[in-house]
Amino acid sequence: MPRAFVSRRVHFNAAHRLHNPDKSDEWNAKTYGKCNSANWHGHNYVLEVIVAGTPDPETGYIIDLGLLKRIVEERIIEKCDHANLNLDVNFLNGILTSTENLAIAFWSELEDSIPEGELYSVKLWETERNMVEYRGE
Amino acid sequence: MPRAFVSRRVHFNAAHRLHNPDKSDEWNAKTYGKCNSANWHGHNYVLEVIVAGTPDPETGYIIDLGLLKRIVEERIIEKCDHANLNLDVNFLNGILTSTENLAIAFWSELEDSIPEGELYSVKLWETERNMVEYRGE
Amino acid sequence: MPRAFVSRRVHFNAAHRLHNPDKSDEWNAKTYGKCNSANWHGHNYVLEVIVAGTPDPETGYIIDLGLLKRIVEERIIEKCDHANLNLDVNFLNGILTSTENLAIAFWSELEDSIPEGELYSVKLWETERNMVEYRGE
Amino acid sequence: MPRAFVSRRVHFNAAHRLHNPDKSDEWNAKTYGKCNSANWHGHNYVLEVIVAGTPDPETGYIIDLGLLKRIVEERIIEKCDHANLNLDVNFLNGILTSTENLAIAFWSELEDSIPEGELYSVKLWETERNMVEYRGE
Amino acid sequence: MPRAFVSRRVHFNAAHRLHNPDKSDEWNAKTYGKCNSANWHGHNYVLEVIVAGTPDPETGYIIDLGLLKRIVEERIIEKCDHANLNLDVNFLNGILTSTENLAIAFWSELEDSIPEGELYSVKLWETERNMVEYRGE
Amino acid sequence: MPRAFVSRRVHFNAAHRLHNPDKSDEWNAKTYGKCNSANWHGHNYVLEVIVAGTPDPETGYIIDLGLLKRIVEERIIEKCDHANLNLDVNFLNGILTSTENLAIAFWSELEDSIPEGELYSVKLWETERNMVEYRGE
Repeated sequence: MPRAFVSRRVHFNAAHRLHNPDKSDEWNAKTYGKCNSANWHGHNYVLEVIVAGTPDPETGYIIDLGLLKRIVEERIIEKCDHANLNLDVNFLNGILTSTENLAIAFWSELEDSIPEGELYSVKLWETERNMVEYRGE
Repeated sequence: MPRAFVSRRVHFNAAHRLHNPDKSDEWNAKTYGKCNSANWHGHNYVLEVIVAGTPDPETGYIIDLGLLKRIVEERIIEKCDHANLNLDVNFLNGILTSTENLAIAFWSELEDSIPEGELYSVKLWETERNMVEYRGE
Repeated sequence: MPRAFVSRRVHFNAAHRLHNPDKSDEWNAKTYGKCNSANWHGHNYVLEVIVAGTPDPETGYIIDLGLLKRIVEERIIEKCDHANLNLDVNFLNGILTSTENLAIAFWSELEDSIPEGELYSVKLWETERNMVEYRGE
Repeated sequence: MPRAFVSRRVHFNAAHRLHNPDKSDEWNAKTYGKCNSANWHGHNYVLEVIVAGTPDPETGYIIDLGLLKRIVEERIIEKCDHANLNLDVNFLNGILTSTENLAIAFWSELEDSIPEGELYSVKLWETERNMVEYRGE
Repeated sequence: MPRAFVSRRVHFNAAHRLHNPDKSDEWNAKTYGKCNSANWHGHNYVLEVIVAGTPDPETGYIIDLGLLKRIVEERIIEKCDHANLNLDVNFLNGILTSTENLAIAFWSELEDSIPEGELYSVKLWETERNMVEYRGE
Repeated sequence: MPRAFVSRRVHFNAAHRLHNPDKSDEWNAKTYGKCNSANWHGHNYVLEVIVAGTPDPETGYIIDLGLLKRIVEERIIEKCDHANLNLDVNFLNGILTSTENLAIAFWSELEDSIPEGELYSVKLWETERNMVEYRGE
């Protein structure tokens, strides 16, 4: 039975700020530079979710990408889109909103929600040039 | 000897329809939604073919990408471009034209045709947001 | 009062075929080449709709892009997406589905539907490399 | 003497919120939807600045694009990048931060700063799908 | 009769150098910076050619984009692709290879070669961020 | 401790030529075609550098992408940008400048320079359609 990978890209626009509240303002300014800017900044995030599995002989699908899109929208996009990632998202409470930590948190939200196949990778672009991938390792 | 991966992207435009002839019209409509639309729809498919191998010390190439392009064009593009994937392509006869099944079928067409290096991956984008990868597993 | 241009991009996937029924098969094959292929082919069309006007002092909008998106979806996308442009779309009846003619037909569908500002341009990409713009001239 | 157009694209990441302080919360929520979200959201803005003019016979340039980039960075990017457009940018004080108003404000900042050729157009993408152009009309 | 615009994008890869032989080395180094680098540098140029006209009622075409592509390839691409723009291209002899001058020279090569419709615009991207448009003015 | 991958994209514009000096002109012309063109050609190269590691609990970073960018600029971009890869770059001396060999050479330049995490992959695009990945195997 062949094993393949199916991926879906979604988008959301959010505000955030890199700031570690356990550290001094000096440490934060030095560590994060303008990403520590007090009044927030934001991004057009691109999220790619990759599911591994075997195509169902009856449907030809590993997982219906319409269903995968709805799962990602329900668990991630509705909570993060047009939101402040530091203030507004329950599952990010207490998490430093680096792209690394966001990708890992999105994996945790999605891992047990994929009804067919299994979650293989989460890729998150903060900008066209900066990306993090997490594969649950 | 270093092992690297070389990839080439090609494009084709084709019509298709998701429809399982062993199932009822109701099942097909419910399973595939508008992808089951009776008079076909279509896509600008993007196909990326990745070959793994060691660069030849004389040429610097794993495989000449011009040669790889010609192989992909001869075995895939000439048959699929401006065609109906359900009706016009011999090597897709009897195959449900989901992106998963197309990527696996393209792998089979290419697997024994790569004269240098070895086929590592086939990636197929149906849209900018939907992609399948198959690595022959 | 400053006059600016606001644009919204949308996507749809459709099948079509270039074929003039008043001409012979030979003429069609010679004129359109593989675009005349009998069993259809298709594209991921990209449609950009541009509205000119003055931003409303109260809202800052020429037109709410959410509203513009809904108008384009209602008048164009719901009819054309996952459809056969030659067979399934009422407002394209009897029209040769060249990108030129599609852009002009989309303008006609939209021209009287823009409640704020005025329609300035319709751009339609058949592929990343082929585009038509129509400005109602 | 031929007249041509030279353009340079730059990027910045910023937070903002659509909110008219002269109106009720109900009006703002109804007018702007999630773009009115209280704790801000943000975007990877793309700004394209287009200068019209005649190439200098000695340099071949309408304007040195390195110089144009430095002007745009000094007047726009240094003030807007990783900032909150509603709170942190002097030249946007009291301006509703719709893409329309931002493009017009950027034009005003740049209009008298172009030492060769003349400013022809400012294009501002809020997302890949939403764009405003202002030509000083 | 409606007038629309049809455009075709093509690509070529070339070496060049900005250098005015009538000026001193110091002037060239100061004016062009690293673009004056002695041993050349290069780009993946993107060229978009836009033709204005009325769609032919029999074909639906302003101009067959396959024909337009062949004209651009014959007059521009075959001469410029994998070439040195300063040394290898007859129609660029004695021309400073700024993007401005290249776009104007490409217009001259194409202007009288368009058999249907009329040349409206030539756009040339040196990089994703730097572009020149020339409309024959 | 979760292990993720962080990647940064950078760009450079360079001239090169495929030519093996130990072989005859006929061999070179036959092997490389127009890539062997005597007066060089060039590309807008895109380089993606991927680092694997565990996010630091204090910073949320595997590696600060600003630091990674500076390392890649110092070790690769400053030497290769607006240069001739065959003539101007010390660490490429005697290397056939195929994309394969460039990616492997860039890996060698970067491998011991990554202060946090470890180098996982180097991807190099010569054009949008041609790419090589090297993972140090």
